[in-house]
Amino acid sequence: MANNAVQQIQVTRVTDGISEELSDAIAIEEPLEIRLEHGPAGERKVQNISVTMRTPGNDAELATGFLFTEGIIKKASDIQAAEHCFIACADNRENVIQVSLAENITPHLQNTERNFYTTSSCGVCGKGSINAIRTVSNYIDGQLDNNFISTEIITNLPDKLRRHQKVFADTGGLHASALFTTNGDLLLVREDVGRHNALDKLIGAAINQLSLPLDNTVLLLSGRASFELVQKAAMAGINIIAAVGAPSSLAVQLAQEFNITLAGFLRGQRFNIYTAPQRILIPNYENSYQK
Amino acid sequence: MANNAVQQIQVTRVTDGISEELSDAIAIEEPLEIRLEHGPAGERKVQNISVTMRTPGNDAELATGFLFTEGIIKKASDIQAAEHCFIACADNRENVIQVSLAENITPHLQNTERNFYTTSSCGVCGKGSINAIRTVSNYIDGQLDNNFISTEIITNLPDKLRRHQKVFADTGGLHASALFTTNGDLLLVREDVGRHNALDKLIGAAINQLSLPLDNTVLLLSGRASFELVQKAAMAGINIIAAVGAPSSLAVQLAQEFNITLAGFLRGQRFNIYTAPQRILIPNYENSYQK
Repeated sequence: MANNAVQQIQVTRVTDGISEELSDAIAIEEPLEIRLEHGPAGERKVQNISVTMRTPGNDAELATGFLFTEGIIKKASDIQAAEHCFIACADNRENVIQVSLAENITPHLQNTERNFYTTSSCGVCGKGSINAIRTVSNYIDGQLDNNFISTEIITNLPDKLRRHQKVFADTGGLHASALFTTNGDLLLVREDVGRHNALDKLIGAAINQLSLPLDNTVLLLSGRASFELVQKAAMAGINIIAAVGAPSSLAVQLAQEFNITLAGFLRGQRFNIYTAPQRILIPNYENSYQK
Repeated sequence: MANNAVQQIQVTRVTDGISEELSDAIAIEEPLEIRLEHGPAGERKVQNISVTMRTPGNDAELATGFLFTEGIIKKASDIQAAEHCFIACADNRENVIQVSLAENITPHLQNTERNFYTTSSCGVCGKGSINAIRTVSNYIDGQLDNNFISTEIITNLPDKLRRHQKVFADTGGLHASALFTTNGDLLLVREDVGRHNALDKLIGAAINQLSLPLDNTVLLLSGRASFELVQKAAMAGINIIAAVGAPSSLAVQLAQEFNITLAGFLRGQRFNIYTAPQRILIPNYENSYQK
């Protein structure tokens, strides 16, 4: 993705009041419209589902991950094809992607209204949101606690990500999501100007390349952990999340509710565990799950 | 806002493989539903406009700023009242705000579909988005270049923000937007888990407390500069933006098109100028606008 993720531009750099002209790399941000084609043969219809500001590249994965984490589709094989539409446009940029579902698949389109906010009995509140997610995820209940990771492997994850996060190194402008084994081996990494897009791309790729649920992996987030990111991880059955940045209150609440291990503030040899510490092997920690 | 922006929780902190239990502060994230009441007396109706994940506090400003930067309302006096609705909810959280427009005001609701992506002739592309914004902003044309700032004042802005950004200091989990005079005096600062919310709150406050356009101020963003943030600034007539982080390609393109000065990557005594450098007073810079 490096080619269409970065643009070189001329900038004026000012250092101690002295200016110089130089070329610098910035992260590309462009809108992507996701369209969904579905229905039985002869009655196919196309709907505009979403427009997101994203970094071009891995668009089919982004669309797949978005449809899956929003609960609109249930599995990779629901999708027949995902292709860019080149509509009349002087630039002819690849900014529209059309996902065609298999003929026998009915998309759960009520979910596009983010109805977990509005269908719950109390209207809009954290608890309502969490309860409603429970109804659309296949993987958040009955998670076995047989996925463990050591503190040493956790503290090494950010360095491993940085070595693979090429576009960020160039631009300082991208979020990343990465999936590791609990031995610390990198499985997948995806980058984007939007952190929810980076995670949608990652989960979209995982749906095609790995088997769900992803309950034997660790998700690393390059920045902060928000409610939406934990929700997307929960949809894919991820049960260990490590974030370089801080979590929000609702991210912690959701992780707690779904028994997801949430670690944050990874800085050198230090980090915080917010929920479900039993999956993290700490030498001096009293832990009934550990031998 | 400090009281409802931060929550204390118990965390397990791991340092060099040794764990300890302690209390730590995290930023509160909760959904906010924005409802709009409008129409002539006797025919008032209420519509759900948006749900955003935000940090509680300054909700009326957030709703005002959102409606203004989306082009749905044109001025502060379009709004008669903005109040929380307490709907049936066990928690009774303040997660719904209803904005009532004056009876003679018709909201520009076509804008809620983010129609700048879809009404442009080419469908979805950067240029289409930019052209469409031009049609809804009152302040992006004919900006006078009589707003100047020195490099020294720019490089001091992040420190000034940090001293006022109390919640970030507590949690490491919030974005901030701040408005300064070109002499470096802080006018307003707002924080949120979402950076677009922080800017909506700031612009919502500015609409009520300052006079538009904000073409005699400087906007400081605590993180990266995205297309959406530059677009919101353009709607309020802001013509100098300084970001601690990196800008995206479309942010630069929009700033260029609207003759907005965009500086980024503020680190100590160093920063980059991406567009419209004539408003930044650099000692050794050839600048026809400067005496």
